[in-house]
Amino acid sequence: MFKLLKIDTHTKARLGRLTTAHGVVDTPVYMPVGTQASVKALDPRELREMGTQIILGNTYHLNIRPGLDILRAAGGLHQFMNWNLPILTDSGGFQVFSLAKIRKIKPHGVEFRSHLDGSPLFLGPKEAMEIQRTLGSDIAMVFDECPPHDAPAREQRLAVERTLRWARECRDLPRAHGQLVFGIVQGGSNAALREECAKSLVAMDFDGYAIGGVSVGEPEPEMLKAIELTAPFLPAHKARYAMGLGTPAQMMELIARGVDMFDCVLPTRVARNGTAYTRRGALGIKGGSYKADFRPIEEGCACFACKHFTRAYLRHLLNVNEILGLRMLSVHNTHLFLQLMADARTHLAAGTFADFYREFIAGYTPSRRILSARNAELER
Amino acid sequence: MFKLLKIDTHTKARLGRLTTAHGVVDTPVYMPVGTQASVKALDPRELREMGTQIILGNTYHLNIRPGLDILRAAGGLHQFMNWNLPILTDSGGFQVFSLAKIRKIKPHGVEFRSHLDGSPLFLGPKEAMEIQRTLGSDIAMVFDECPPHDAPAREQRLAVERTLRWARECRDLPRAHGQLVFGIVQGGSNAALREECAKSLVAMDFDGYAIGGVSVGEPEPEMLKAIELTAPFLPAHKARYAMGLGTPAQMMELIARGVDMFDCVLPTRVARNGTAYTRRGALGIKGGSYKADFRPIEEGCACFACKHFTRAYLRHLLNVNEILGLRMLSVHNTHLFLQLMADARTHLAAGTFADFYREFIAGYTPSRRILSARNAELER
Repeated sequence: MFKLLKIDTHTKARLGRLTTAHGVVDTPVYMPVGTQASVKALDPRELREMGTQIILGNTYHLNIRPGLDILRAAGGLHQFMNWNLPILTDSGGFQVFSLAKIRKIKPHGVEFRSHLDGSPLFLGPKEAMEIQRTLGSDIAMVFDECPPHDAPAREQRLAVERTLRWARECRDLPRAHGQLVFGIVQGGSNAALREECAKSLVAMDFDGYAIGGVSVGEPEPEMLKAIELTAPFLPAHKARYAMGLGTPAQMMELIARGVDMFDCVLPTRVARNGTAYTRRGALGIKGGSYKADFRPIEEGCACFACKHFTRAYLRHLLNVNEILGLRMLSVHNTHLFLQLMADARTHLAAGTFADFYREFIAGYTPSRRILSARNAELER
Repeated sequence: MFKLLKIDTHTKARLGRLTTAHGVVDTPVYMPVGTQASVKALDPRELREMGTQIILGNTYHLNIRPGLDILRAAGGLHQFMNWNLPILTDSGGFQVFSLAKIRKIKPHGVEFRSHLDGSPLFLGPKEAMEIQRTLGSDIAMVFDECPPHDAPAREQRLAVERTLRWARECRDLPRAHGQLVFGIVQGGSNAALREECAKSLVAMDFDGYAIGGVSVGEPEPEMLKAIELTAPFLPAHKARYAMGLGTPAQMMELIARGVDMFDCVLPTRVARNGTAYTRRGALGIKGGSYKADFRPIEEGCACFACKHFTRAYLRHLLNVNEILGLRMLSVHNTHLFLQLMADARTHLAAGTFADFYREFIAGYTPSRRILSARNAELER
């Protein structure tokens, strides 16, 4: 299913190809996030035009709305949302972290109170796999427990134990036709736990491996450490997916560390706040300095927004709350994330990835939040 | 500038062609409304694909944001928003009605307090024409006074007097290159006032004539009466524009009464509340009856939404507040309004308009609000 085509000679970056029931995915790949059966603000045509190869859906959210009955009647998630390229579904494991206030962890899964109306909802390996089978995703994720980054050691260990037990259950449950199943490595920033979790999952022989327990509030250096502690124990011939990450610079750092797959809500989330990513860093387009700036968001960008509109116009739209403003920033940001992956693949194929990576990082100014986390780490 | 190509033999419907600085507009025409330099939720490509010939902008709103300096620096409204087909700009006269609480009418215009920050803003014929010259719209509207439908007779008379005085001023002020200027008939539902206002404006020889003082809260029968009291006094060889109207059935009624041009925010406004128009009436797509309805909004509709998505999916998107839901309803509704005009033109050219009109009205169930207004009229 996964073909490793090339490994960079200077970094650990990998060029690969993943074959799924709905088509081939060239890696490294960014997967736009369609939690509720829609990549926020974008339509399928826009996604295809930008070169989207695969999108995400979410087990927890889709199970609540529209619900399995409707998804089953529609013939699955692809049909329901009219997307006939690959879909990866998250298992609901991340909601164990993100909805921590409304759930209780039990031996066979997690008891949620619906974030919507408080009604009870039980998700465990059995439920998560059954839902993903009904959704008919190309890649299902095992149901894991994702603790916060600052969870005590004991809690991290328990999470790994449960994650491994649940992973084995998930592996043996029925799947949709051609559906791949990926294991998820937990273990926080504990080297021994990461190694143990990775090795145990690899012994279960999944179709691919995700690194979880990242994008859970940890500073950037801790996130990179978690990846570095895990990657060496994953098999070269299986795809590696860093869950919920990251900024453009972070994705580049992770590609250089051997990650093949990414998903992240940042492109559309920050768009709704008026932030545009560029290859040099993020711009707050609402700012007064852009009010008569008739350049595109990013010179040379081929996205629909940059081909048609100026910063001054987009700033106006965002400031008067016109939906076209956040739409166009969502287009630009998503296009950029996809394009960075396409560029990485091109450079990997040409053997020039290391230079591309070095120049990209040198030219990119991370946002203040990420910079301050980096600096805090340097001062330790 | 306006060529009257044909008059229907059974109704007063007209087929025409209006030539502007940015191109030709076939009439009857529906003009999507881009108050703040964006037709809400839609992008220019979507508008063109639907067959949009001309859009609206608004003097009052654009003058506040982004402001004239930026619009001037951009090279006008077409450039600013990247729309190179015709634009008609409303003069701000309608805001005399819609922002009644924050304005005072003076001899030379209207003193507003900005709806945004309370800062003072004066709009009169001089200001409105200067702004529209800077915007560079293809059709500028004179600055008029638009009283509410239930204004007392004295107020209606004063509004007509001011409207006529201001119209004469507007006519003689400088225009953008090739800019057409339309007069606006006021007079409420008073036959003598409508006749006087129309005749006086016609004597001033404008490039076209709008019927104002409609879409100001009046019941449908009163609206139709205002049109019927005005149309006979307008010259056959000039375009006629009913401002701010209407529903699909109302537009059809108005075409049959000789109206050539329409603008209306309903398609995009009701979309944001989850309402889809069809040729048979409006559907509240959020309703439970559509939850497993895998048909398009309207069978046979060629819009992007109907070609790609089901009612069940759109209902889900609307209920979970995904932007794609309101986007697709905005696409469908705007497409329908444009398509009804295209159909009317086709039937006018073929000499079959009267049948088309009769069948359309017979098959269309107006919303309850409009029905109750009609029934109230029948009981008088």
